[in-house]
Amino acid sequence: MIDLLALCAFNAAYAHTIDSDALEQWPAFFTPDCHYRITHVENEQEGLAAGIVYADSRAMLEDRIAALREANIYERQRYRHILGVPLLVSTDVESAHARTPFLVVRIMATGQSEVFASGEYRDHFVQQDGQLLLAERVAICDSTVTDTLMALPL
Amino acid sequence: MIDLLALCAFNAAYAHTIDSDALEQWPAFFTPDCHYRITHVENEQEGLAAGIVYADSRAMLEDRIAALREANIYERQRYRHILGVPLLVSTDVESAHARTPFLVVRIMATGQSEVFASGEYRDHFVQQDGQLLLAERVAICDSTVTDTLMALPL
Amino acid sequence: MIDLLALCAFNAAYAHTIDSDALEQWPAFFTPDCHYRITHVENEQEGLAAGIVYADSRAMLEDRIAALREANIYERQRYRHILGVPLLVSTDVESAHARTPFLVVRIMATGQSEVFASGEYRDHFVQQDGQLLLAERVAICDSTVTDTLMALPL
Repeated sequence: MIDLLALCAFNAAYAHTIDSDALEQWPAFFTPDCHYRITHVENEQEGLAAGIVYADSRAMLEDRIAALREANIYERQRYRHILGVPLLVSTDVESAHARTPFLVVRIMATGQSEVFASGEYRDHFVQQDGQLLLAERVAICDSTVTDTLMALPL
Repeated sequence: MIDLLALCAFNAAYAHTIDSDALEQWPAFFTPDCHYRITHVENEQEGLAAGIVYADSRAMLEDRIAALREANIYERQRYRHILGVPLLVSTDVESAHARTPFLVVRIMATGQSEVFASGEYRDHFVQQDGQLLLAERVAICDSTVTDTLMALPL
Repeated sequence: MIDLLALCAFNAAYAHTIDSDALEQWPAFFTPDCHYRITHVENEQEGLAAGIVYADSRAMLEDRIAALREANIYERQRYRHILGVPLLVSTDVESAHARTPFLVVRIMATGQSEVFASGEYRDHFVQQDGQLLLAERVAICDSTVTDTLMALPL
């Protein structure tokens, strides 16, 4: 059984990877044929799947990070994820569905920080070769006012 | 023994119920003769028990939700709860006392969001018919400046 | 083995001690020869160890609290810590290294509150006489804009 503590530990490592600027390690949290999206609550309710960011493979996530590095956007802002305990919707030996609340603070190069996004991850975790991975993560932002600068992964 | 992980899982489900607008399921987290209050830290220190919101039965919580639906207030704002890990003050087989920090972001219909409230739940959990329930939850807000629009449960 | 749940419980008690103004109990979370620092991410990257607050013994932490009480600063503001789940970097029977994200809301005497600081604890926990204690806690703030009023412990 995939249990709550394993998901908590996974999410702590996931958030730390982004927040410590180890972005090249971020795609490794996903399966090769993963689905990753950032969207907001109204788009999601209306079934508008495309969202703000869309990827349907780990390779696309790797491309995204490479593009971020190219553009040097990563130097202009940092994030701090504060994640809640997951709500475990269903779980068995090889798979789990969970929902996890997130709050992200953005720290700009000036040193100023602000609450940047809140929302919920809707996740499908799988166990592959003894490793817990995300087959799907949809980051659903609460706010419909989307910052066009949204650059780092949520 | 009621343990820390069980309380974490309970709180994740509780917060998700409110934040996903499944408000009709919210009273089911409480015992029939529960005590629920929202207050702030100064009122609590002075023993002013009434607080901002007061209910002493599950039926009163159900009435409150019905009134919210009637007033359509639920369409005008949503919350996102970010809860800390509970501090387990005491626990045995059938009962536990705990304190859990909360942060609530409010998202208005315009899509704007703001940190709305922070504080601490002071909880008495009981095990009834194999189910973990709140016999008492007092949500003590840190700020004494209370928003008169406070409508959704904390 | 020092496990994740033990660290979660420790941090919940630590944060509650500060946020409930039981500051005299705060030094007891540390070993007698502890190392405690508050700094920010740029100073830390450049190896500027001194930081904003520095102590290298429990006695220095006790002095700090005594000074705070003397100055009555504790009446002018309160904090609310929202802590994430620790990332357990390494652990064995007697020692663990972990990193824990924090968000601190500050509540002023006027009742107004604001997100005051975000960052990460870099911790070294040890087991001494059956008790989990901090041999080292470095609180690394994300923002380089430091509030000179920073008075309470993080």
